[in-house]
Amino acid sequence: MKESLEKYFDRLWPLNRSLTGNANRETLGILSEIIDLKISEIPSGTECFDWKVPPEWNVKEAWIKDGSGKIIVDFRKNNLHLLGYSTGFSGKMELKLLKEHLYSLPAQPDVIPYLTSYYKRKWGFCITYRQLKELSEDTYEVFIDADLNENGSMTIAEAVIKGETEEEVLLSTYICHPSMANNELSGPLVTAFIFNELKKSGRKKYTYRFLFLPETIGAVYYLSVNGEELKKKLIAGYVVTCAGDRGNFTYKRSRNGNSAADRAAEIMLKQKEKEYIIEDFFPTGSDERQYCSPGYDLPVGSLMRTRYGKYNEYHTSADNKEFISFERMEDTVRMYLDIINVIEKNAYYKNLKPYCEPQLGKYGLYPEIGSDKDTAETVSSLMWALNLSDGMNDLITISEKSGTEFEKIAEACEILEKKGILEKRIIKNQKL
Amino acid sequence: MKESLEKYFDRLWPLNRSLTGNANRETLGILSEIIDLKISEIPSGTECFDWKVPPEWNVKEAWIKDGSGKIIVDFRKNNLHLLGYSTGFSGKMELKLLKEHLYSLPAQPDVIPYLTSYYKRKWGFCITYRQLKELSEDTYEVFIDADLNENGSMTIAEAVIKGETEEEVLLSTYICHPSMANNELSGPLVTAFIFNELKKSGRKKYTYRFLFLPETIGAVYYLSVNGEELKKKLIAGYVVTCAGDRGNFTYKRSRNGNSAADRAAEIMLKQKEKEYIIEDFFPTGSDERQYCSPGYDLPVGSLMRTRYGKYNEYHTSADNKEFISFERMEDTVRMYLDIINVIEKNAYYKNLKPYCEPQLGKYGLYPEIGSDKDTAETVSSLMWALNLSDGMNDLITISEKSGTEFEKIAEACEILEKKGILEKRIIKNQKL
Amino acid sequence: MKESLEKYFDRLWPLNRSLTGNANRETLGILSEIIDLKISEIPSGTECFDWKVPPEWNVKEAWIKDGSGKIIVDFRKNNLHLLGYSTGFSGKMELKLLKEHLYSLPAQPDVIPYLTSYYKRKWGFCITYRQLKELSEDTYEVFIDADLNENGSMTIAEAVIKGETEEEVLLSTYICHPSMANNELSGPLVTAFIFNELKKSGRKKYTYRFLFLPETIGAVYYLSVNGEELKKKLIAGYVVTCAGDRGNFTYKRSRNGNSAADRAAEIMLKQKEKEYIIEDFFPTGSDERQYCSPGYDLPVGSLMRTRYGKYNEYHTSADNKEFISFERMEDTVRMYLDIINVIEKNAYYKNLKPYCEPQLGKYGLYPEIGSDKDTAETVSSLMWALNLSDGMNDLITISEKSGTEFEKIAEACEILEKKGILEKRIIKNQKL
Repeated sequence: MKESLEKYFDRLWPLNRSLTGNANRETLGILSEIIDLKISEIPSGTECFDWKVPPEWNVKEAWIKDGSGKIIVDFRKNNLHLLGYSTGFSGKMELKLLKEHLYSLPAQPDVIPYLTSYYKRKWGFCITYRQLKELSEDTYEVFIDADLNENGSMTIAEAVIKGETEEEVLLSTYICHPSMANNELSGPLVTAFIFNELKKSGRKKYTYRFLFLPETIGAVYYLSVNGEELKKKLIAGYVVTCAGDRGNFTYKRSRNGNSAADRAAEIMLKQKEKEYIIEDFFPTGSDERQYCSPGYDLPVGSLMRTRYGKYNEYHTSADNKEFISFERMEDTVRMYLDIINVIEKNAYYKNLKPYCEPQLGKYGLYPEIGSDKDTAETVSSLMWALNLSDGMNDLITISEKSGTEFEKIAEACEILEKKGILEKRIIKNQKL
Repeated sequence: MKESLEKYFDRLWPLNRSLTGNANRETLGILSEIIDLKISEIPSGTECFDWKVPPEWNVKEAWIKDGSGKIIVDFRKNNLHLLGYSTGFSGKMELKLLKEHLYSLPAQPDVIPYLTSYYKRKWGFCITYRQLKELSEDTYEVFIDADLNENGSMTIAEAVIKGETEEEVLLSTYICHPSMANNELSGPLVTAFIFNELKKSGRKKYTYRFLFLPETIGAVYYLSVNGEELKKKLIAGYVVTCAGDRGNFTYKRSRNGNSAADRAAEIMLKQKEKEYIIEDFFPTGSDERQYCSPGYDLPVGSLMRTRYGKYNEYHTSADNKEFISFERMEDTVRMYLDIINVIEKNAYYKNLKPYCEPQLGKYGLYPEIGSDKDTAETVSSLMWALNLSDGMNDLITISEKSGTEFEKIAEACEILEKKGILEKRIIKNQKL
Repeated sequence: MKESLEKYFDRLWPLNRSLTGNANRETLGILSEIIDLKISEIPSGTECFDWKVPPEWNVKEAWIKDGSGKIIVDFRKNNLHLLGYSTGFSGKMELKLLKEHLYSLPAQPDVIPYLTSYYKRKWGFCITYRQLKELSEDTYEVFIDADLNENGSMTIAEAVIKGETEEEVLLSTYICHPSMANNELSGPLVTAFIFNELKKSGRKKYTYRFLFLPETIGAVYYLSVNGEELKKKLIAGYVVTCAGDRGNFTYKRSRNGNSAADRAAEIMLKQKEKEYIIEDFFPTGSDERQYCSPGYDLPVGSLMRTRYGKYNEYHTSADNKEFISFERMEDTVRMYLDIINVIEKNAYYKNLKPYCEPQLGKYGLYPEIGSDKDTAETVSSLMWALNLSDGMNDLITISEKSGTEFEKIAEACEILEKKGILEKRIIKNQKL
């Protein structure tokens, strides 16, 4: 999988993604090779709650020339050079005036910062602080061929894997970042590959919904149309972001803090990872801000590797291909699949023989020679499954209380179900 | 008490106890000298839930002779040599075939393991791994004079100390282990001596029920007949096992985890012991597995010293008289009595003067010279009893919150009750 | 403020305060220069619950002379020398008999202990243990001109700052200690100065009630008359005591343990102090014993510096001016004011735009250049206020969950309220 991730990464990397624009369409076009995307265009100006879909932004060219006519900053070399949603501009000016339109990071003098001005019309360039300091008094020529089209549209995409029930699991990622690797080419890539693996692995209990949206405005728009429906159907969801760096996993809990999304993610991290970080919900970050706004309070967390804002390369030109690892990115895909496996298998069972233990030997489930020192170990999963299957403890709880791997408890319950000793409880619209 | 414990131990030690058989009858006969046992015989084949009472097993003789006619394994020397519930057998065979019927513990080459085959018909011997390795190619003669009688019965026994109320405290132990000391001669011995001490100490609030059962099948049978009754009456119970080794106390909580049994045991351990272990319920172990099966979920925990499976001597010939201490066994009896004292005295009181403090001096309960640095200490128990006796905190809670010994709080409440300031709350079928 | 505190301290220091008497009237007279006290006289013999207001005690003179006629113990030199509520006495006696009336502290041989005998008629003197040991066989003359007047009265005082609502905050202190500094001149002084500062700081939401009572009997009397009213109106209260030593703050929780009083005090201590102690409620101590008796269970805690009983100087002549610091006393006043500020500002808000985030930029609340590394910090308070303002989390909770200073959250909520995004929830008789 990691070679395939890298190939798609290389093709998606150069595109100048933003809230809107042709690069977003191209991005979704490429991803469609992996995932069955239904792509929609939302007209600029569309109102959604407190927000409005912005004009469509497309850039052809953007550069600064010095007095000698030499191009010293070029959008073609790195699309971070242009302030996101910069207006078009053409003109000559002295250094002092130019500097009012230049952004850099003194603390990290060798990187180009990633900045945007979505809702206030401005033009500007982002450059390294080193370059800024070296600029001499001169007359500079600035040219930005950028278009902000009020009649344009915002492109969003969605894919669904239908399950046996209407209850849904959501995976949401964002496609509004230009050439940065961890944040945020890793998110769309990981999400697309989760789809691919899940689709291959056969019929599912739950319906899986995958969203590729520009951050914030995309989620706000989506919720303005589908929020009430999600509220009814969603049992768990994750914002997929910062999924490709070399750090350990970080799980940011949903606002609820103990949702099915949280419980499934946390039990897998505990059972599969040596070191990881669990963070309580906080209302800054990515689109979980919208999913977990108090009117929705959806069970949506976020599984990341190193969290946005926690690494120096974040939102700079240093968040590049060297910074990430396709092996780690594949690990992220697999961890999401493990978590989804927990969500799929988790259930409440009812012990149909709740008075004393059933005689496991009769069902071929007990070693013949009793009192052997090893037997306690081998029948322990069955005993836990029997003892706690009172309809009140789901498999996650049984796994936690017993200190036994989720998979082993799930297996024990399946065996006992086949023997007619346990019965699965059907809970309509279960929140797990 | 410890000399008496040792005398009974020595008499009970050689008997070949099992699920059924004459040795169990003899065992209960000897224990009847200490405790008023009502002994019952349950016919083999009696159905109880998923189980059936097994045929009665009695052994007369069992040995292996080598080619020279020398007895090399003899049931008479150690009754662990014969696989529990072994069928009868007589015949000659080569070493290779014999080995299919020999059991040993390679990790502990000098001990005879304790093994049984209750529900699958087999014959076999248990020997040390050292002996197994030394067996040479030879023709061996095997003789087992053992009887599995489908028309026999399983022997169980019960004793009751009637209290003022029908609410019950249960002490359950098992009598199905042949010559092993901690597990399990200590359990029946300690239980019998608890009965003896309790009987001597005068009228009790609660009714005390003592059960001597073969493990698992005995408890399953007992519950199949009396389970619903126990559910109504039982306020606390303990499985008495592993009660005689030199280790610190271990308390295994009931499934509920916060039952009266748990709270009484834990407050006494905290107040009387420097080091001890508290374990959450787990569904392997002894008869608490049946009492705490989800259909019953009775308030039954287990106070042990070193827990089964936690010491190397467990279920081997090394669990012998040297391994245990009659002083420690007596300590276990006393700890159970302390816990029972908590259960007896624990109550909810209601402060009849709940507005401000009563003037303790008027009742002769306050030192005359106020502001003395010592007075805070001496009136503290009274103050705690008064402040928390709102009908919501029982004495255990008051003891815990105040960090004051249970006995001192109980005494303070009794004094205040006599002065007419506190009133005991009668709670029908209280779960404490 | 600290100079002013010292001036009042010096004037109040020499007065022989007790449960009753003229020194209490003088004390309240002096405090009336700072705080609008309404002073009441409660006749001796007045019954209140289990108690009776004691006779009024006034002392003119009290001394012991040795055989040579030299005064060796003199009430005029230190009013702790006379046992509190000592009866009058006049007579000569040998050392042995005298010693039955002498109290000292062997463990602290150089201090005079503070002792009283309020409810049992006695006469006695408190002296240093060093002096006691040096007393030689001699005939001593004792003279105590003290009056216990059954027709006297107990003096109590109260001040109120009326707020917008009838809901009340209580500050209760005691005036029954003679010449001791931390316990208890600091309490009345700090309480009076809190009144003074609060009065100057403008209109308040809550009504503030200040009580100056003799300890225990004063509070018992006050509650016997006003307890039911307090139960209805009180949202938070504090017993002000031990407020002037050099130690860190100690907060003793109300019986409830999570009352508004507790939450406000604890969040301020956490945010303003490096080291401090939180203690759970215990039913010995000062007048919180009465306010938190089970019939009332009022939300009354106690913010102290070093707690009574925790320092050696406690209830001795060593609790003097050197032991305390007027700077620390002023700090205590300010900490109480900070806590009151939390109580005043704490509220539940409701987010009127609960679906997704409002677009903060539209309201001028969001930095124009997005994705700047600093912006997360600056908008974080607004985001927390928005996300948790679901009518279920008050500002204290939002401050705790966000790890953001209470003041910043309060400010964020005020801004959002002005923009029409948040709305304050009016909760009648809110318990915060």
